[in-house]
Formats: sequence, structure tokens, C-alpha cells
Amino acid sequence: MTIINDAKNNVINKSIKECAIYEQVPESAIIEGLCSGTIVIPKNNNRSFTARAIGKGLTTKININLGTSENNVDIKEELKKLEVAIQFGADSFMDLSTAGDLDLIRKELLANSNIMMGTVPIYSVITKLLEDNHELTSMSINMLFDEIEKQAEQGVDFMTVHCGLNRRSLDFLDRNPRVVGIVSRGGSMLKHWMKTNNKENPLYEHFDRLLAICKKHEVTLSLGDGLRPGGLVDATDQAQLAELMVLGELVKNCRQEGVQVMVEGPGHVPWKDIQMNIELQKSLCKEAPFYVLGPLTTDISAGYDHITGAIGATAAAVYGADFLCCVTPSEHLCLPNIDDIKQGTIAFKIAAHSADISKGIKKSIQTDLNMSKARAELSWEKMYEYALDPELAKKRKQESSLGKEECSMCGKHCAIRVANQ
Amino acid sequence: MTIINDAKNNVINKSIKECAIYEQVPESAIIEGLCSGTIVIPKNNNRSFTARAIGKGLTTKININLGTSENNVDIKEELKKLEVAIQFGADSFMDLSTAGDLDLIRKELLANSNIMMGTVPIYSVITKLLEDNHELTSMSINMLFDEIEKQAEQGVDFMTVHCGLNRRSLDFLDRNPRVVGIVSRGGSMLKHWMKTNNKENPLYEHFDRLLAICKKHEVTLSLGDGLRPGGLVDATDQAQLAELMVLGELVKNCRQEGVQVMVEGPGHVPWKDIQMNIELQKSLCKEAPFYVLGPLTTDISAGYDHITGAIGATAAAVYGADFLCCVTPSEHLCLPNIDDIKQGTIAFKIAAHSADISKGIKKSIQTDLNMSKARAELSWEKMYEYALDPELAKKRKQESSLGKEECSMCGKHCAIRVANQ
Repeated sequence: MTIINDAKNNVINKSIKECAIYEQVPESAIIEGLCSGTIVIPKNNNRSFTARAIGKGLTTKININLGTSENNVDIKEELKKLEVAIQFGADSFMDLSTAGDLDLIRKELLANSNIMMGTVPIYSVITKLLEDNHELTSMSINMLFDEIEKQAEQGVDFMTVHCGLNRRSLDFLDRNPRVVGIVSRGGSMLKHWMKTNNKENPLYEHFDRLLAICKKHEVTLSLGDGLRPGGLVDATDQAQLAELMVLGELVKNCRQEGVQVMVEGPGHVPWKDIQMNIELQKSLCKEAPFYVLGPLTTDISAGYDHITGAIGATAAAVYGADFLCCVTPSEHLCLPNIDDIKQGTIAFKIAAHSADISKGIKKSIQTDLNMSKARAELSWEKMYEYALDPELAKKRKQESSLGKEECSMCGKHCAIRVANQ
Repeated sequence: MTIINDAKNNVINKSIKECAIYEQVPESAIIEGLCSGTIVIPKNNNRSFTARAIGKGLTTKININLGTSENNVDIKEELKKLEVAIQFGADSFMDLSTAGDLDLIRKELLANSNIMMGTVPIYSVITKLLEDNHELTSMSINMLFDEIEKQAEQGVDFMTVHCGLNRRSLDFLDRNPRVVGIVSRGGSMLKHWMKTNNKENPLYEHFDRLLAICKKHEVTLSLGDGLRPGGLVDATDQAQLAELMVLGELVKNCRQEGVQVMVEGPGHVPWKDIQMNIELQKSLCKEAPFYVLGPLTTDISAGYDHITGAIGATAAAVYGADFLCCVTPSEHLCLPNIDDIKQGTIAFKIAAHSADISKGIKKSIQTDLNMSKARAELSWEKMYEYALDPELAKKRKQESSLGKEECSMCGKHCAIRVANQ
């Protein structure tokens, strides 16, 4: 593990340097964060791209999920999704493919990306079993770890592993039934496997095996929340907290072994409880970077969940979440298409950027100041330049009032023009 | 003023009854709020529709702006915008038309709506002056009040009047220059008029005349924020606060005269300052209902400002804002079209609903619980029913996986299906 070892030896390697430059912070701040575990730099030692750090005191990062599913297998489309996500500012992506030649898809995506890549290895194991008409409960422990090792060798930078869904946390779930139950795919697979085979979660029981693989290939662990709530009614319940407490225990093991680790969180959370959820994670997981899925602040916005997710994500990021998993308009309805990926990425870029301004990140504040100056000058070319989606901004302005100084909202009543008189 | 008088005499009139039923609160709660000024029921005594109350302890309401502008004059399109806004849950609309036959447009919109309607009367006065090739500075005080009286007679339920932009508050603006200056159309017109004519703001100086008209026709005043910031860099500055302080003084005059009043607020606000902005308004304006424009939490999202506005609006509403003015994707670029109205309304419905859940409004919580139960049963018909936009939800699910129980996101890996095994 070069990154952690170098940090511990106060060696400023290329990745640390790149992150410090991007964040406009001293290299010592990155090193301190790596040593204390409040910062991670997910980067497999087989990959080469400009590194990005995630964690305390840094800009908020965003991840976009993509990948194939049944009847939706098209590598070219997935590559296009990746391209669009990168164009609109994604800091990482996860390949969640569950159909087609999974090894080839992963290879292609890795080869065509210059950002961090994550996976959920159990998806591939289960996909292959089901394709061969086996029950998912027939998965052997070696199958799972062999897949993890293969993906680590391939170059995956971070992996979601649902290690906290163990007998202890499932016992809390059994005693406190939910309305929506388990909504994490990995979580439901593991629970089904555990109950049928009457065994402990292998990712928990053999966590040391996981750590050895991560150490060898410099894979960052993303401890997944298989028991995240699937509706506001189930939010912040015993099962969710029991799992989070287990994850907090495992964070300590990772740090002892020098494996970089972040923790995943909900999901669906009423707005007023977002702050508490972040504070709980930071406390129980000793300030490990927090990677949140939204959260969604209402359940009824299918088709518009990117907006709902951005509402929750902004609050989460201000309160301390470090890494936001984009929700797209397709959430709860279908596999995202290319436009969904664009809409989700932009919505979460807005969330991350809004939070970074609130957190006092200077370069984020400067962008908005530039935009304000451009507006005061009615300088449309500059306004397009600073906009998150210059092409769309230009298109809408020009279509509606081509050649005019003011836009068609106010026309000659333009407040800025009147004020400049 | 029937509503306030009835409330003061503890008479439960039709409007009070309708509001209590809708909010699922006792009629006494509405009466108390009306008497203390924490609740308003904007409803002109010439109009007949099911009343809605805005204020403390009630569901968060949303307003959508529509209306013509130069080169965009089509009454049919405005009526269609109104229809779409009502379909997706707007509680009120403002006609901000600045081109065409303004009296006719207002009449048509009033005749075709069953929700509250607001206007900014100064727009009409200035539009007519400019059409006749006069300078806006040639507006006489009588012209302004005659227009207000005419619109009150026509049936307008609430009017935005920028009374707080007076010599005192402009002095603060002069001493503390801004990057973007004044971005309120009414505000910039009034400032230009005041400076050129070297006179006080007539809406401030003759506030008693305004109160007399409102009393006669039961018009609710919406004290406008002509000095709202136009960029994060200008947020919460001296000019904004000076104006808010003046508005707080005028709230007292309204209450003394038995005129219903709410106060308008920003605009552009960094996320971390939203709570402070709400608390300041509630303190300075003695808990008058707060009607906020967004607020936007970043300046760089032109084309997507409905999302940014929804992020700010959710926080604002949780902290106490009562009435949210929708921002559409066209903000900062062009006049909204019909789809912009739909997108803006839905984004702000998500904000209002998310906030209401956080505020503990029972009927809002129940809707999300219904959705969670439908999801647990994989009952798509029920999921569509509870969705904010049933048609879109159905379209996307069916296009991608027609006839299948699971959606195309997870297919046979569906967590709910696996968990139910």
C-alpha cells in the first residue's frame, strides 16, 4: 500500500501531490488526513490517472453509477454514459453491471476512464450463478473472494462490500420489522445466503482475507450499507444503526492493517434527520469518509429523484458527508440512460458545489463570484463559460432572444439594464 | 376585510373553514394565526375559490410565476401554463405579464383559475409608459395607485409592493456597493424613479393609501424585496437587511389596520446562511408569513436553477419559510415555457413536501408511507398513484420493462424480490 505507507513515512508521492494541488491545500493536510483515516485516495496500484482525495476539509466528490442489466447490454452505451459523467464533473463511477460479459465490460470501462472506478464484486458472482441456473445460495466463499481478487488485479480502485450485515445486525432487523425491508441488492443477496445456509456473512467472517487483497492491490474499501432504509418510514432504525456500528468496528481493523476505508450511508432520510445521520456516522466510524446515497428526502418523486437526492445530498455534505452517490431521474423506475446520467451528475454537482461554498472552499466561492461579475456586465459569453452546462445555457438564451442584450424573461424591463441607466 | 374581522370576532367563515379542513387543524388554529398575523388567507372579496392559508403550523405553499414578455405574447400559452401549474400542485400563481393587453390577460387568468393570484402592479404601469414611448421616470403617483386600485377591483388576491426600498435602505446600498446591484425589476424601476425625481418611494410614502385599497377589496400585501441579492457574494448585506427592517416596520402598520401581510425574501443565499435569513425575517417582521424566492444556493446552475432553488427552498421551509416561489429551469436565461412551468412546479412541490414531512405534517408523512407500502408489495399501479407525476413514472417503467414485475434497474436481482423469497 504505497499511499498509506508513504503518508506514514511523510513521503509526498505523486498521488498526494496531485490531490494537494487540486484541493489547493498543503500536502501536509493530505498526509495528516491519510494517516488519521479522515481522507482516502482510492487508486489501485495497477491504474494511472490523476488522483483525487475524498474526505475531511476537501471538496465534496460525486460518484455516478452505471452498468448493464438484463436486456440492457451495450458496452458502447455504457462508455458513452461514462464520457457524459466525466464531462459534467463526476469524480468517480461505479460499474454495477449485472448482464453481459462482465469482465470485458469492466476492462473497457477501466481502459476508457481517467477517474476512480468502484464495483460491487458480489453482483458479478451472483450474476454468473444465476446465468448458469444455479441458486444464489450456492455461492461458495471462495467464489466470492476469487472474484474480489480478480477485480483487484484488474485495477478496481474501490469496492463496496456489505460486511456490516452480519448476524448481530440482522437480529436487530428481525426484532424490528420494516415496511420496505432490505432494498440493497448486495444486502438482500447476502441475507438470503446467510439464512439459507445458516452461516455468518463471509465478508464479515473473513474480513482479514478482504484486507489482505486490498493491501496487495491498493484497493480502498467502501463498507456498504446493506441495511439502508428503503423509505422514510424505516429511516434511522435499529437495523441501520446496528450495521453502522459494525462498520465502525471494521474501520478500526482497516486502519490497523493500513487499508484505506470509507463508509456508506443512506438512502431515504427525512430532511430533519440528515444532520443526525451524518454525526452518528462520524462518531461511530471515527471520522472515516462518509459516502451517502442521496439521501432522498421524500419517497414520492419517482422520475425526479435526482432533485430529491440533490436536496438531501446538499444538507448531508454541509454536515460532513464527503462523497455523494448521484441519484438519477430513473431511480425506482428503470436503468438510467445516457440523459439520466447527465441529469443525475449535474444535480449532484450542484449539491456538492453548493455545499462546498457553505464549507468555505475558496475555489468554489470564486466560480460564483465570476458568474456574478459576468451577470453584472450582462456578458453572456462569460455567463456561459461559468455555467455548469454552457451548451444548454447558450441554447436557451439564444433561442429565445437571439442578438438581444437582455434575456426574454424581462426584456426591456431588465433590472440590471435599468439599474445601469 | 371579512377574513380578519371575522377572525377577530371568532366567526368561522367559509374561507376559515376550508383552510382548517385542508390543513387538518382546528379552526381555532387558523383564527389565532390570522389574529396574530402568523397566518394569511389571500383571497380578494371579488373572487370565489377554495381558500388556502399560508403561515405558521400549516403545509408549505408554492407559487409559480407566469406571464407574457416582449415577443412572447400568447394568452392561450399562459392559460396552458396555469393549467399545468395547477395540475402539479401550485397553490398560487403570479401574473407577471409585461406585454400585450395586460388587463385582458389578467382577466382571463383570473377567470380560469381556482387558486390564489398575485401581481406586481408597477409592472403594468411601467409597461404602458414604455409602450407609449415615455420614460419610466414620468410615472405619476396617481398612475401607480390607480393601477393598484384597478387590479384590486379586478380580483387580485395578493400584490407585491416594493415598499421597503426607501431612502434609508438605498442609503445603505450606496454605502455598500454590490457586485450585481439590484436584480428585482420593481426594485430597479423604483430606484431609478426615486433618484431621477429626487423623491421618496411612493409605495412607502403613501403606504396608508395602499392600506385603504387593500382593506376595501381584501387584498393581501406581499411586501417585496426590491433589494434582494442577485448573487451569493451580495447575500445578507446591509441593503438587504435595511429593507427587511423597513418591511418589519410596515408589517406593524398593516396589522394595526387589519390588512393581511406577508414578507418576501431572497433570492441567492449560501446554504449555511439560509437558517439565519429565515430567523432574521421572523424576528424583524414579528413572524409574518415569509415568502421566499428559491433561494438559490449557487449562481452557476443556469438551465438547472429549479434544482438549486429546490435545495434552498427545502432548507428555508424547514427553518420556517411558509411560501415558496418556484424557480424554473429558464431562470437567468429566458421566459419560462410550459415545460419549464411543469419542471419548476414539481421541483418545488418536492421541496415543500420534503419540508412538511420534516415539520411533522401528518398527511404528508402518510403519503410517503403509502408509497413505501406499495414498493414493498411491488405494486406498480399504487406506486404510480402516489407519485408526483404518475404519467411519467408509468411511462418510464413500462417503456423499459413492460410486463415485468421488477424494473429494469435490477431485473432479477431486485432486492425486494430476493428479500421476499
